Amino acid sequence: MKETINLGIIGLGGRGESLLEYVILDEADVNVVGVCDLYEDRARKGFDLVKEKKGNEPLKTLDYHDILDIPGLDCVFVTSSWETHIQIAIDAMKKGIRPGVEVGAAYSIQQLWDLVRTSEETGVPCMMLENCCYGREEMMLMHMIRNGQFGEIVHCEGGYRHDLREEVGFGRENRHYRNANYMNRNCENYPTHELGPICQMLGINHGNRLLKLTSTASCSRGLNAYLTGEKGPEYDQASYPFAQGDVVNTVITCAHGQTISLTLDTTLPRYYSRGLVVQGTKAMYCEDNNSIFMDGVHSEMDGFYWKKFWGNAEEFRKDWESPTWKQFLEDGVRGGHGGMDYLVDRAFFDSVKNECDPPIDVYDMATWMCISVLSEESIALGGAPVYIPDFTNGKWIETR
Amino acid sequence: MKETINLGIIGLGGRGESLLEYVILDEADVNVVGVCDLYEDRARKGFDLVKEKKGNEPLKTLDYHDILDIPGLDCVFVTSSWETHIQIAIDAMKKGIRPGVEVGAAYSIQQLWDLVRTSEETGVPCMMLENCCYGREEMMLMHMIRNGQFGEIVHCEGGYRHDLREEVGFGRENRHYRNANYMNRNCENYPTHELGPICQMLGINHGNRLLKLTSTASCSRGLNAYLTGEKGPEYDQASYPFAQGDVVNTVITCAHGQTISLTLDTTLPRYYSRGLVVQGTKAMYCEDNNSIFMDGVHSEMDGFYWKKFWGNAEEFRKDWESPTWKQFLEDGVRGGHGGMDYLVDRAFFDSVKNECDPPIDVYDMATWMCISVLSEESIALGGAPVYIPDFTNGKWIETR
Repeated sequence: MKETINLGIIGLGGRGESLLEYVILDEADVNVVGVCDLYEDRARKGFDLVKEKKGNEPLKTLDYHDILDIPGLDCVFVTSSWETHIQIAIDAMKKGIRPGVEVGAAYSIQQLWDLVRTSEETGVPCMMLENCCYGREEMMLMHMIRNGQFGEIVHCEGGYRHDLREEVGFGRENRHYRNANYMNRNCENYPTHELGPICQMLGINHGNRLLKLTSTASCSRGLNAYLTGEKGPEYDQASYPFAQGDVVNTVITCAHGQTISLTLDTTLPRYYSRGLVVQGTKAMYCEDNNSIFMDGVHSEMDGFYWKKFWGNAEEFRKDWESPTWKQFLEDGVRGGHGGMDYLVDRAFFDSVKNECDPPIDVYDMATWMCISVLSEESIALGGAPVYIPDFTNGKWIETR
Repeated sequence: MKETINLGIIGLGGRGESLLEYVILDEADVNVVGVCDLYEDRARKGFDLVKEKKGNEPLKTLDYHDILDIPGLDCVFVTSSWETHIQIAIDAMKKGIRPGVEVGAAYSIQQLWDLVRTSEETGVPCMMLENCCYGREEMMLMHMIRNGQFGEIVHCEGGYRHDLREEVGFGRENRHYRNANYMNRNCENYPTHELGPICQMLGINHGNRLLKLTSTASCSRGLNAYLTGEKGPEYDQASYPFAQGDVVNTVITCAHGQTISLTLDTTLPRYYSRGLVVQGTKAMYCEDNNSIFMDGVHSEMDGFYWKKFWGNAEEFRKDWESPTWKQFLEDGVRGGHGGMDYLVDRAFFDSVKNECDPPIDVYDMATWMCISVLSEESIALGGAPVYIPDFTNGKWIETR
């Protein structure tokens, strides 16, 4: 086991900077030895943060290859724009460096195969930093599911339902990659926040797998209405024909017949929700009213009065808080997004220190990220069902 | 205008009997002149109810053709098993009798064309008694939408999410048609409770139309688990391979690009919900927490604190209660299902008395009911997109 680890960070936009400041630099056993961004001002900000909080002067560069050449580097955080994640991870593994890759999705199936094969050939693990797999609710549900409280899981729903009109609409001005993505692509562009935890609940790549999907996008109205309202009709993107539909519905079927319904919903006014619904033969959970319905405890007739049970998921914490969160609450919750950023990053650091497999591996990453490409394909084909590749090449059949 | 109308009722299972007792027989201007069911005891029960509450002795028969031959009959209620609805409606119209058809869905597209053509050729209107189009929430939302409060509607969701395990599982014993349907078919078998109101919100058949769908069914686990729990593994249907998947996800695309996501969810433990979600460029509604999010009033950041707005749809009643419900509340709400049974049946009676077009017409009926057949087709084809016929033959282009 390593006492300390040397980390480089590639990508210092909003996400990279906040992880650096609020998670990474607080960890005594992590040395930040390199910072990189395409923009000098962002790289400089990262450099200053490291110097201020840790005292050392990391390598600062605009070219991520320089980071991968730092002697003694153990791992990199890939917090760059979506479309660069996979190539950077591949290049890192080829140099023996473990990548921790922030959330995003894929642009081709081939690049995901390249990712998987690079990890297999180099023996270097690659972890996706899907923080929502460490959400308190998600982990409690997982704990209940593993203890049989939900019976057999039959159907799950999830979404990335987050009003990003400002971030997307003014993405050019703010150098945010989402703008160009929404201008040009039409797909489930951000599936993993909900899909990651759901796949863990359904044992995906461990005796089960994602088999096929269909995907349908609505028309695109939200950004035009928003930009017209904010900037007037003369603003050039106010009437730009954004390729991205406002709402994308994707329905996935698993090898054992379970279904997963995913919704991308980011350019209409709304409150934030990951829209999680879990339905088993013994219980169900619904995030939008944070309730758990237990067969034999609650009755269907409660439906007409279900309101009184809204929020009752809180009552299950006493018995079913996940061991990870129980400890975390005792130790003191820290890091962004309610603590889950800390937990996922810490899990990554520990896998690097212990030189062991990470809890979210390259097969999970490829399986979750491929959904964006395949939804793009299905939408382009008018909603045709599309087959989901088996990135494990059959290893999923053996329950691990 | 007719002073009173003569009505026959065909089908006296649970639904027919309750409508007879709690709605029809309370109306002073409706004479019940015939009662029919395939089962003698049910027909007898209907006869007794009429005699008790109205004093007259209606014709009692096991053959619905006898009802259609009653001299002076104005209309029939079709409250029989799903698979008989359309043929009975066709036979009624051929005799000049207006059918009011209870909720259900179709078994072939051809039979829906027969229904539409019979209405066109005979000039006899046919109304679907979709009570949820008269739900208080649905009508308030419709009122808000028509007044521009939601901006342009882009996406809607709805479901029939109702734990029917007892009704389906013991349907043989209780002579309920759902059992045989679930044994043999796999489809969105009951779409109209949610789809009817959504179609009205989206102007379907009035300048917009349903264009295509994809449908996906989960595996079937709920009924087996339920029957095994209730009756033990020896019970013959405890391990019967029900064709019907527990959850069916259907995604419809409209001519103008709006999407509608429907969920059938009737054989797993849960609370009742029609899962209505309405999303426009200015506002959204979510049934599962009964809240309305208004752009510019609420902020996306409220998402993290959205809980405090749960139930806030109630606050909109003051300004946006529909005129129909305002009047209904003043007059005194009556009839089943919170009053909406009364409203839809009364709308039917009024259309018969006034000899005018009903508010839900034969095109709406065919458009809404065809979804079950087409979802069956899409599921059978592995989720392939299926085209939705235009039962208006182009009349939908002219906004009526």
